Amino acid sequence: MGGMPAFVPSGLITLTTDFGLEDPFVGVMKGSILARFAAARIVDLTHAVPAQRPLEAGFWLSRSFGYFPAGTVHVAVVDPGVGTARAILCALANGHALLAPDNGLLAPVVARCPGVQTVELAPERLSRLGIHRVSATFHGRDIFAPVAAELACGRCAPLELGQARILPHPAGPPTAEAPGRTVHGSVVTVDHFGNLITDIDARRLEGLGTPRVGIAGRLLAVRHTYAEASAGELMAVINSFDVLEIAERDGSAAISLGVGRGAPVTVEPSG
Amino acid sequence: MGGMPAFVPSGLITLTTDFGLEDPFVGVMKGSILARFAAARIVDLTHAVPAQRPLEAGFWLSRSFGYFPAGTVHVAVVDPGVGTARAILCALANGHALLAPDNGLLAPVVARCPGVQTVELAPERLSRLGIHRVSATFHGRDIFAPVAAELACGRCAPLELGQARILPHPAGPPTAEAPGRTVHGSVVTVDHFGNLITDIDARRLEGLGTPRVGIAGRLLAVRHTYAEASAGELMAVINSFDVLEIAERDGSAAISLGVGRGAPVTVEPSG
Amino acid sequence: MGGMPAFVPSGLITLTTDFGLEDPFVGVMKGSILARFAAARIVDLTHAVPAQRPLEAGFWLSRSFGYFPAGTVHVAVVDPGVGTARAILCALANGHALLAPDNGLLAPVVARCPGVQTVELAPERLSRLGIHRVSATFHGRDIFAPVAAELACGRCAPLELGQARILPHPAGPPTAEAPGRTVHGSVVTVDHFGNLITDIDARRLEGLGTPRVGIAGRLLAVRHTYAEASAGELMAVINSFDVLEIAERDGSAAISLGVGRGAPVTVEPSG
Repeated sequence: MGGMPAFVPSGLITLTTDFGLEDPFVGVMKGSILARFAAARIVDLTHAVPAQRPLEAGFWLSRSFGYFPAGTVHVAVVDPGVGTARAILCALANGHALLAPDNGLLAPVVARCPGVQTVELAPERLSRLGIHRVSATFHGRDIFAPVAAELACGRCAPLELGQARILPHPAGPPTAEAPGRTVHGSVVTVDHFGNLITDIDARRLEGLGTPRVGIAGRLLAVRHTYAEASAGELMAVINSFDVLEIAERDGSAAISLGVGRGAPVTVEPSG
Repeated sequence: MGGMPAFVPSGLITLTTDFGLEDPFVGVMKGSILARFAAARIVDLTHAVPAQRPLEAGFWLSRSFGYFPAGTVHVAVVDPGVGTARAILCALANGHALLAPDNGLLAPVVARCPGVQTVELAPERLSRLGIHRVSATFHGRDIFAPVAAELACGRCAPLELGQARILPHPAGPPTAEAPGRTVHGSVVTVDHFGNLITDIDARRLEGLGTPRVGIAGRLLAVRHTYAEASAGELMAVINSFDVLEIAERDGSAAISLGVGRGAPVTVEPSG
Repeated sequence: MGGMPAFVPSGLITLTTDFGLEDPFVGVMKGSILARFAAARIVDLTHAVPAQRPLEAGFWLSRSFGYFPAGTVHVAVVDPGVGTARAILCALANGHALLAPDNGLLAPVVARCPGVQTVELAPERLSRLGIHRVSATFHGRDIFAPVAAELACGRCAPLELGQARILPHPAGPPTAEAPGRTVHGSVVTVDHFGNLITDIDARRLEGLGTPRVGIAGRLLAVRHTYAEASAGELMAVINSFDVLEIAERDGSAAISLGVGRGAPVTVEPSG
């Protein structure tokens, strides 16, 4: 297992999807889990990932799963290719199991967890677990949910679900940038408060002194906390998920700057 | 019991309402359940049913409850008549209990489950369960929640809650239409992705060959899965809840067609 | 304990925040709770409190917590001052524990529960519970969640978390107004249906006969239930949370009257 902790199920399952909460899709997935494993405890991570943005789901998953107890199963279904031949992956990372379609969603997890191991779900293994009945359009209910239930109750182990699959490690875990270099990144997601959350890991900024952050033609100071700024002031902070964030004290940076997902961000070294 | 499985409580309760999630109404209903039955496990089905549309709640309930373990209590509160003398019904369907106001909400369940049995909640039975304190405007918290708790913990059985009540069976379960006939239906709900979900059951289309679906002046092909269409293409599919749905690959059919709930839909037989 | 029931943990925790449900913030708080107390059962009260409005969170909390079993821990995080030196409070009220920032959020609870006792969380007590790692911007996850878990599993008691702190009792619990006097209040929140919910407690209107309610230049009758009004009629009701509410039968009072949070409301005595 290469030093990676084994999977000892906690009975917990988290859900991350682009299904929204208006319809009963999430509720029915939970029914499908509970019909197989009545004692499962299920936590919603988010169901508001924009459709077509598996990477955003992966970003949040990679930054969130470590706050749950080891042995948790994390299901992520942002799956524009449902109904095609795309595979489903199960990853084992730091004692957690993660289930996701094979569309890049897991890349941010792989990038942060060097020892992650991954398998591609094999239809014959699913059959052996009694997972047969499959709609063409709702794999969340018909495959992801029952597989998560089987993992969470310990009837199967993550790496037994299929053949090993090596995912490309984009760049390895982030490290400090060379002094004097401009760091480049972009906005991954915009939160409920209008904060612009970037893919620039805190570690890349270590040793950069007092840099300034460039976005939408502005250069902003990096604060330690929102409360250090005055009302209405735009600032950058290293947020609680250890990435750079652009925020406005008591306001919405997204509205004030007029930018959103995908906007380029730079960190300019001091002096 | 007429061949219908009896109710053996699973300890699970699902909630379907038009309360939204902005206010603590749903949370307080859960408190009211847990104050009576601390071990209840509660799953949200949806709280975004439009006010005044009990039939839409009934549609989702009828298509969703079977994914939960038998013995689950399903509470549906879309109740424009709260505070009037309208009755509250408890139905026993395939080993599940369903609680809803007597306003037509349960009709889609009755239509799909021929053996369903129903009672009308009797005030003296509620009194015997200690359910007295009743606001004029929040029966979800004051009646539905405590009754669901009593059912879920097994202190009372669904058909003991009052006198039997025969609900009209609108048309019996759907069957294949006669060949060569045009099938008529309408849009019941629009989902998070802008898909238009109709009340046309898959069974009605059996043996129709390769029909075309008429909506908003357009004639659409029926695809097996979203992924069969090209980006931006409008299509019809039999969706994962076994009804006809009009969808747009990577887009919103509701926006592209400019129609929503109530829009008429036809299925034209092939040549 | 001054007659106030002691805290016997029920294992239940409720959450009230301004985090919204689009992002995984609420889910991660739950992870942080479950990582410490795997058997915790967690109920969302609401996550849609407007940012900057701790009093609105306190209003809902004060009107909702009593519907949960005694021994429940209620966490409320509407916290514009996160990252500043503002304290965190723990209150013991009628056998429930309430955790909130020291920004007035708890005032409505104190006003309704004369015997409430409160302490200010002491950093050294948190350290002893192993609560060290603290981001500057997400105390919900890093302090409130682990403290709630410790309370809910009984490893510490609410009043042991720090030094006693006397909160000002605004005016004592509401009592009937003197006859013939006009009662003044305002809209605290607008619910999912567009109902305008005021801070005027039902008790203040006892003995007022058949008053009329003034809002936005209109004078409205007080009804017993929504169903007493005709479709489209504006009315006032004493709602199920025991406060005065302005509603429109089958419509939105907020839209029809064009007012919202903060709007002044009067109750004019009859005759």
